[in-house]
Amino acid sequence: MAVSELARSAESGLTDEQRAEIQALRERSAATRRAGSPGIEELLYLPLPVLDHGFVRVVDYMGDDGAIVQAARVSYGAGTKRKRDDAGLIKYLMRHRHTTPFEMCELKLHLKMPIFVARQHCRHRAASLNEISGRYSILDREFYIPRPEDLAKQTTVNRQGRGEVLEHEQALRVLELLKEDAARAYEHYEQLLDESRPENGEPGGFGLARELARMDLPVNLYTQMYWKIDLHNLFHYLSLRADAHAQYEIRVYADAMLRVVKAWVPLAYEAFMDYRMGAAELSAKGLAVVQRLIRGEKVEQADSGMSPGEWRELMETLEL
Amino acid sequence: MAVSELARSAESGLTDEQRAEIQALRERSAATRRAGSPGIEELLYLPLPVLDHGFVRVVDYMGDDGAIVQAARVSYGAGTKRKRDDAGLIKYLMRHRHTTPFEMCELKLHLKMPIFVARQHCRHRAASLNEISGRYSILDREFYIPRPEDLAKQTTVNRQGRGEVLEHEQALRVLELLKEDAARAYEHYEQLLDESRPENGEPGGFGLARELARMDLPVNLYTQMYWKIDLHNLFHYLSLRADAHAQYEIRVYADAMLRVVKAWVPLAYEAFMDYRMGAAELSAKGLAVVQRLIRGEKVEQADSGMSPGEWRELMETLEL
Amino acid sequence: MAVSELARSAESGLTDEQRAEIQALRERSAATRRAGSPGIEELLYLPLPVLDHGFVRVVDYMGDDGAIVQAARVSYGAGTKRKRDDAGLIKYLMRHRHTTPFEMCELKLHLKMPIFVARQHCRHRAASLNEISGRYSILDREFYIPRPEDLAKQTTVNRQGRGEVLEHEQALRVLELLKEDAARAYEHYEQLLDESRPENGEPGGFGLARELARMDLPVNLYTQMYWKIDLHNLFHYLSLRADAHAQYEIRVYADAMLRVVKAWVPLAYEAFMDYRMGAAELSAKGLAVVQRLIRGEKVEQADSGMSPGEWRELMETLEL
Amino acid sequence: MAVSELARSAESGLTDEQRAEIQALRERSAATRRAGSPGIEELLYLPLPVLDHGFVRVVDYMGDDGAIVQAARVSYGAGTKRKRDDAGLIKYLMRHRHTTPFEMCELKLHLKMPIFVARQHCRHRAASLNEISGRYSILDREFYIPRPEDLAKQTTVNRQGRGEVLEHEQALRVLELLKEDAARAYEHYEQLLDESRPENGEPGGFGLARELARMDLPVNLYTQMYWKIDLHNLFHYLSLRADAHAQYEIRVYADAMLRVVKAWVPLAYEAFMDYRMGAAELSAKGLAVVQRLIRGEKVEQADSGMSPGEWRELMETLEL
Repeated sequence: MAVSELARSAESGLTDEQRAEIQALRERSAATRRAGSPGIEELLYLPLPVLDHGFVRVVDYMGDDGAIVQAARVSYGAGTKRKRDDAGLIKYLMRHRHTTPFEMCELKLHLKMPIFVARQHCRHRAASLNEISGRYSILDREFYIPRPEDLAKQTTVNRQGRGEVLEHEQALRVLELLKEDAARAYEHYEQLLDESRPENGEPGGFGLARELARMDLPVNLYTQMYWKIDLHNLFHYLSLRADAHAQYEIRVYADAMLRVVKAWVPLAYEAFMDYRMGAAELSAKGLAVVQRLIRGEKVEQADSGMSPGEWRELMETLEL
Repeated sequence: MAVSELARSAESGLTDEQRAEIQALRERSAATRRAGSPGIEELLYLPLPVLDHGFVRVVDYMGDDGAIVQAARVSYGAGTKRKRDDAGLIKYLMRHRHTTPFEMCELKLHLKMPIFVARQHCRHRAASLNEISGRYSILDREFYIPRPEDLAKQTTVNRQGRGEVLEHEQALRVLELLKEDAARAYEHYEQLLDESRPENGEPGGFGLARELARMDLPVNLYTQMYWKIDLHNLFHYLSLRADAHAQYEIRVYADAMLRVVKAWVPLAYEAFMDYRMGAAELSAKGLAVVQRLIRGEKVEQADSGMSPGEWRELMETLEL
Repeated sequence: MAVSELARSAESGLTDEQRAEIQALRERSAATRRAGSPGIEELLYLPLPVLDHGFVRVVDYMGDDGAIVQAARVSYGAGTKRKRDDAGLIKYLMRHRHTTPFEMCELKLHLKMPIFVARQHCRHRAASLNEISGRYSILDREFYIPRPEDLAKQTTVNRQGRGEVLEHEQALRVLELLKEDAARAYEHYEQLLDESRPENGEPGGFGLARELARMDLPVNLYTQMYWKIDLHNLFHYLSLRADAHAQYEIRVYADAMLRVVKAWVPLAYEAFMDYRMGAAELSAKGLAVVQRLIRGEKVEQADSGMSPGEWRELMETLEL
Repeated sequence: MAVSELARSAESGLTDEQRAEIQALRERSAATRRAGSPGIEELLYLPLPVLDHGFVRVVDYMGDDGAIVQAARVSYGAGTKRKRDDAGLIKYLMRHRHTTPFEMCELKLHLKMPIFVARQHCRHRAASLNEISGRYSILDREFYIPRPEDLAKQTTVNRQGRGEVLEHEQALRVLELLKEDAARAYEHYEQLLDESRPENGEPGGFGLARELARMDLPVNLYTQMYWKIDLHNLFHYLSLRADAHAQYEIRVYADAMLRVVKAWVPLAYEAFMDYRMGAAELSAKGLAVVQRLIRGEKVEQADSGMSPGEWRELMETLEL
């Protein structure tokens, strides 16, 4: 997606004032002695659209691939000697779980996500976070309403996650219900907040405190936050949240972040994809099975020492 | 409140099975070589009621007042020499912010609180947390509905918090609205989850995945979690959440925890109340004002170097 | 090793007073409603000897295998239903990296280790720590002097670690040097500390502040600390420090802790050994190679997409 | 101190190659859309000299005063509206301990400090850290040798810290001893490492592994690390380590960092100095005494409810 396209699609949910503020930041340019990364500079401040009203927006970053190398060497100069050497060292660090140099890069994002997604998101404690306060602010009228094709039944395979998609007509009825509930909830929220005085026979509003009025709002309401995390902990987050087992509604945020990471630190991204995202962990028993299979032995679940569930997962990993 | 009374009042929201499970744990007794605290043993497993359906329930603890002393001395034996010496050392540690010995005591709680309270609660990152998952479980039909006397208007003093209480009739209308919305939300949640097949002309349920159906629920729904934290970080939590500026609905949880702490580590509790909860921090400018006041000088805000807001806060602190 | 044997060997480095303090704690017994683990009760307070003067000593613990299950289920009662079900759930949690329930168990150790080991040890930030202070205390005259068979040459394979053992005579000369240096360093430390006044023509001591005098001591001096960590973070520590690539002098501490964990939470220990310690992680490229090998293809490093180093590590993992 | 002067004094301990690397980074300049701070750009990469061979060197930073405001407002644009408003908001955040916005600024330093200082320094767990490894590298021959005027006796007031300075002659003798010990230790370190083969009747070196040879080195040897921390946690560090009770040898590092912070985020620095560094915390009992003193009452320790130690500290705070 080109940046112009990006900007267009993302701007849709923003007010004119917000667009102007972002534009002003985009036009800002100053000389710095700091390490920088051209790829992520291109993305700075732009809201990358996620779900129907959400976004991932890079607000600031520290470091580049060279900063990882520089810290690993505790060097006086820049980390980068030759790009080839740097790539090798970064791969080595990733492979052997020397994680501290990856902590030397830092990313700050502005995120807009539904509350129920934010609740999963905030379980990652190694990040700094500043969220809009419903005690202080009146929250915006924006709710997550899924696309029909994202409405799925409870899975029957395990006890968590989604199975087949709802039939179209059923999906439309679900969406109708969600939309009505969202509209009513916000209307009630406004009534509760309404500070107007009784006048001309009109009863006047309740003027309820914001911290109380918000309790009537559902968890598909959008919230916003600044979120800052180092690259090591971001990789940990991504390995869990960009995974196929993560709920779709958080996975799309992780996918947008993966795109940011690729633009920011391409060498670290490549190492991460090879050694983490695409990697497979074999248990001691699983490793023994693999060794036997490579020697040409025939192995069955019954003589593997593994449970049926483990065996199924192993066969999927090995594509057998 | 006596324990029997406690147990009675708290049991109200529990199923028979849950009461039996708690009773079984209460009757459990084993010999241990570990340090123990009689005060908190008395409370173990009992749900201390908070709000209309919530509770704070001690599930486990590690250490006592002596464990703080023992760690501060890196000792081979028990911390306790004489109770008087221990009290003096604990006060000294608290006063001089030697915080690591307080980390050597640990508390594990089972908490039941509304989602909007849990969202504030989970901002404390130095705790371990296991929450009921709406992806995996069907959530219970329990919503926080305030008492009329807890419904207050937005404050006019600053931009956050509550002011005067709503008139009784107004309050009743608000509660009616909250109750109706809660009932409807849960009914819709059940409809969305309903996996019944079309039969005899009945349309059948949507069978929507749990992770999706929950998005229609409001944030006054109750959630539950196991929450484990060390005493130092618990004190930090309490200094913020038992404070008069905290929202009432989280402050009542902090108050219940204060009661637990008092029963568990009475010496540390006393030091905390003197040096933290009841303490006042003077800024450099505020200290200068106090020194002048003690010398008998007349000081005005205008010549204090402080802003009007700071000055007002200082005068409140000094009860002038 | 039987407990009696243990006690005997460990007592060697302790003063009579310390032995008596430990004995008093061993004889302490109180009834508790808390979950307990008989295996670790057996070890409580005993110094498990490590290196020539060091130890690992369990001071307190919270939880057992059942506590992991209990937290995963956010249950009202004990975690344990049937031992077989618990084992299955614990394995599932370990396999799918659901790590938070493992944070619900906590271990407190008293450790005595050389400073250069403590410096590696303290890099693990998710632990609570209270170390003896050289500003406040006079440090004991105890230095780590390796056994001859532990003196090895710098490895030639990579740039870190040990290779072949020194010849015996060389080893003895090294030990002589280490012992002399340790003795001299402690003698100088005492001279620097000496607060005696000049008297009868004697010059008197320097009376140097403790925080300064200690700077002359080498990093093989023993230090002591209380160290508290939850089971999840302890497993992370052990996966790094009980690994063959860890320095021998820290690995022996990790080995002693493994023994503690096995006695404390046998089900979690077993899952950890299968899914972490004995597990193998294959990169995306490594997995592709394994899939080809199982299909009976012949694969060479040159057409594997892997570097020579990665290839060698993969072949070692597969025992090819 | 001017930057030129700074550069000169700091370069003294560096090799030509290191100076050239720093110079190359100083001359680097690139355009960025990121927020920047002119004051800290001026300091970037320069080693600020600390003790005889140590330094504090800014390697990278993220954010400025505006970034604190921006996060507090969860805003779409830059934080800065008017400098005056920003200052007011930053003071408000600091005064009311709204700490998360301060976490949104990040600082990365290259530090060179004696091991015994690094050991205190590394107790601050909320930082990222990459230290030179004695397993991998041969450590440099650089030891901290205090100035004569920094050699002081053990204090007699409390049990920790320094009292009066040693007499000059005594000081010189201490320094002689420290220098000799340092020289001998490094000589032995080199002998242990020496990998030369026996030749022409020469015995050859021991070739001991680096991870073992280092154990003979004293804790006044210099080590180096990259250290990254957010502004909130840096303020916490500084409130403890720039305090008069901190050991002189770490306080000088904190002082150098204070200078960096002042150049980087002047508004936050000012708020920190007023509300933290120069602030005084009164206990509940202390506050009651102050209220009585302001009312003109005469208060004695005996009727204050405070211990003699607390009373003395209060009188010092109030300059009475």
